[in-house]
Amino acid sequence: MKTLILDLAERSYPIHIGDGLLDDPDLFLPHLNGGPVLIITNPTIAPLYLARLQQTLAGVGLQHLELPDGEEYKTLNSLKRIIDHALQHRLSRDCTFIALGGGVIGDITGFAAACYQRGVNYLQVPTTLLAQVDSSVGGKTAVNHPLGKNMIGSFHQPRCVVIDTGTLNTLPDREFMAGLAEIIKYGLLGDAELFAWLETNMAALRDRDAQALSHAIERSCRIKADVVSADETEAGCRALLNLGHTFAHAIETGLGYGRWLHGEAVAAGCCMAADLSMRLGWLGQAERARICDLMEAAGLPIAAPEELAEEQLLALMRQDKKVRAGQMPLILLESVGKAAIHFDYDENALQSTLSMCRK
Amino acid sequence: MKTLILDLAERSYPIHIGDGLLDDPDLFLPHLNGGPVLIITNPTIAPLYLARLQQTLAGVGLQHLELPDGEEYKTLNSLKRIIDHALQHRLSRDCTFIALGGGVIGDITGFAAACYQRGVNYLQVPTTLLAQVDSSVGGKTAVNHPLGKNMIGSFHQPRCVVIDTGTLNTLPDREFMAGLAEIIKYGLLGDAELFAWLETNMAALRDRDAQALSHAIERSCRIKADVVSADETEAGCRALLNLGHTFAHAIETGLGYGRWLHGEAVAAGCCMAADLSMRLGWLGQAERARICDLMEAAGLPIAAPEELAEEQLLALMRQDKKVRAGQMPLILLESVGKAAIHFDYDENALQSTLSMCRK
Repeated sequence: MKTLILDLAERSYPIHIGDGLLDDPDLFLPHLNGGPVLIITNPTIAPLYLARLQQTLAGVGLQHLELPDGEEYKTLNSLKRIIDHALQHRLSRDCTFIALGGGVIGDITGFAAACYQRGVNYLQVPTTLLAQVDSSVGGKTAVNHPLGKNMIGSFHQPRCVVIDTGTLNTLPDREFMAGLAEIIKYGLLGDAELFAWLETNMAALRDRDAQALSHAIERSCRIKADVVSADETEAGCRALLNLGHTFAHAIETGLGYGRWLHGEAVAAGCCMAADLSMRLGWLGQAERARICDLMEAAGLPIAAPEELAEEQLLALMRQDKKVRAGQMPLILLESVGKAAIHFDYDENALQSTLSMCRK
Repeated sequence: MKTLILDLAERSYPIHIGDGLLDDPDLFLPHLNGGPVLIITNPTIAPLYLARLQQTLAGVGLQHLELPDGEEYKTLNSLKRIIDHALQHRLSRDCTFIALGGGVIGDITGFAAACYQRGVNYLQVPTTLLAQVDSSVGGKTAVNHPLGKNMIGSFHQPRCVVIDTGTLNTLPDREFMAGLAEIIKYGLLGDAELFAWLETNMAALRDRDAQALSHAIERSCRIKADVVSADETEAGCRALLNLGHTFAHAIETGLGYGRWLHGEAVAAGCCMAADLSMRLGWLGQAERARICDLMEAAGLPIAAPEELAEEQLLALMRQDKKVRAGQMPLILLESVGKAAIHFDYDENALQSTLSMCRK
């Protein structure tokens, strides 16, 4: 087992990474407050892992709640279901919520923990690759609104993240590959060495080689933890983690939640950010090609879907949370391993990227 | 005009108190972020003060939204209406919400500001006495749930509080008196001098004498600001501000929201806390009488309504957010001007208080 610490002074917390961690009570018990525990999961994950976690926490006052599976259920209504359950079962302020599932379960559970009685304890137990390397770490919580992703939420840090890499053995291929997109993103934005390692080891990763996975997850979590520790509420450098995400959110919203997985949209978005960076003269053509090649090797899309019109994509991008006073900042690449936020760029280049990056 | 500062390091903010402040743009403009401004108010307050505030902020990109008036609308649904409006009008993350109204508008607006895009700027412009001395200061935001008051919310500090005492001239008598309950509460829990001053000046206050009001509001805000500054998220001494509130919430929930005003329930709750403190031997009989006399002089109830059964009140009290591991802490009085939190007390004394304090 590897343990990283996300350093946020008195709110610091450990991120444990390893195979079989679901069975180790010592990773969980120190982070409960002595009150009741509510595990929040979904009907896909519950049959696979709920009983194991319940066994690990035997002796604690345990309850569980299943929410329907899917991004389309990441809504205020699901939040309300958690709060209803908590109040109906009179969970006191010293309770702990545990998110057992992917990014949707993690984001809703975190937001419910942020709001319930003005804030209670929660733990993240991510079971998808995407949640393990991204959404479970860093305290961003949210639900979606029909007019935009993650528009209702808050910053609320978990007390602990337990990443059992064994849970990836039951993850469907498509979701597994979607998680690879975020790992590649970390290499792109801040770790050229990780990127090169991924180029060499993509086949082992796609075979779910335990050692390769553990290395990639640890390295990804390390980057994320460092960035969040430096800028918890995204006043500055945390924005770099959104590489490709303004494009990605436009694709996801344009298609309707659930058609493309978030990681798939991020893969296309990173390639589009690379394309724009090249058009602006900040990235070489060979580097752009390396990025698209690695995304393809990971089984991921490298362009936006044909059915979304260029103007529609642009309009959706302009609804991004980061838009201020009409300016739309974009995270662009100066090289593989170096990203920067740009407020000022040639709009024509963006138009070209939107019209050319289609599959 | 008097200005107090609520000291929270980089999140410190001013509380301005005076007559006619609604017309002073210099109190508002420094606290906008340069983005659009959304004023949230209700149909009672809008005809009285909305146009004045709009005139004061002329030149800023202004919008407004009216929510229905009343505690029964302090719900997730009203929160959703604010978020819907903000997204439909594409308000960017640099927007500012302004709460123009009483405690309900302030609490919902603050919570919407806490959640919208994971947190935006907001200002409090309270127009009821209760909101001016209590809910607008300190960053507690929330909406109600059918199973309990303020069960869904967060801590999110405003950037500024503008208390125009002139708005009290249009406040109905019953609501005005309800606000006096919280002022008396401040005297009780931490300021014997304020309490004695209130005994002498209650008639002037009820006549809405401008100078007396300004003094009482400033003194109340001073106490609240000091307590919040010492303990923002209620890990310790902030709990003292809840004097009478566990009783009060039980009364409000038992009767159904809106039958008793919050301040009326707090008045009865403070008298019940005084009664219990006396039964436990911590407060003299004469002091208990002083407390009830002052509440009566303010035109407020001093006991729970007859129709709520003793067992029902007790059951409702046990749903309080502060209950942990079955223990129900209560704020009790050691003298007029000195309160303390107690976790351990004779349950029979509590039963007696619940059965005797009836009108």
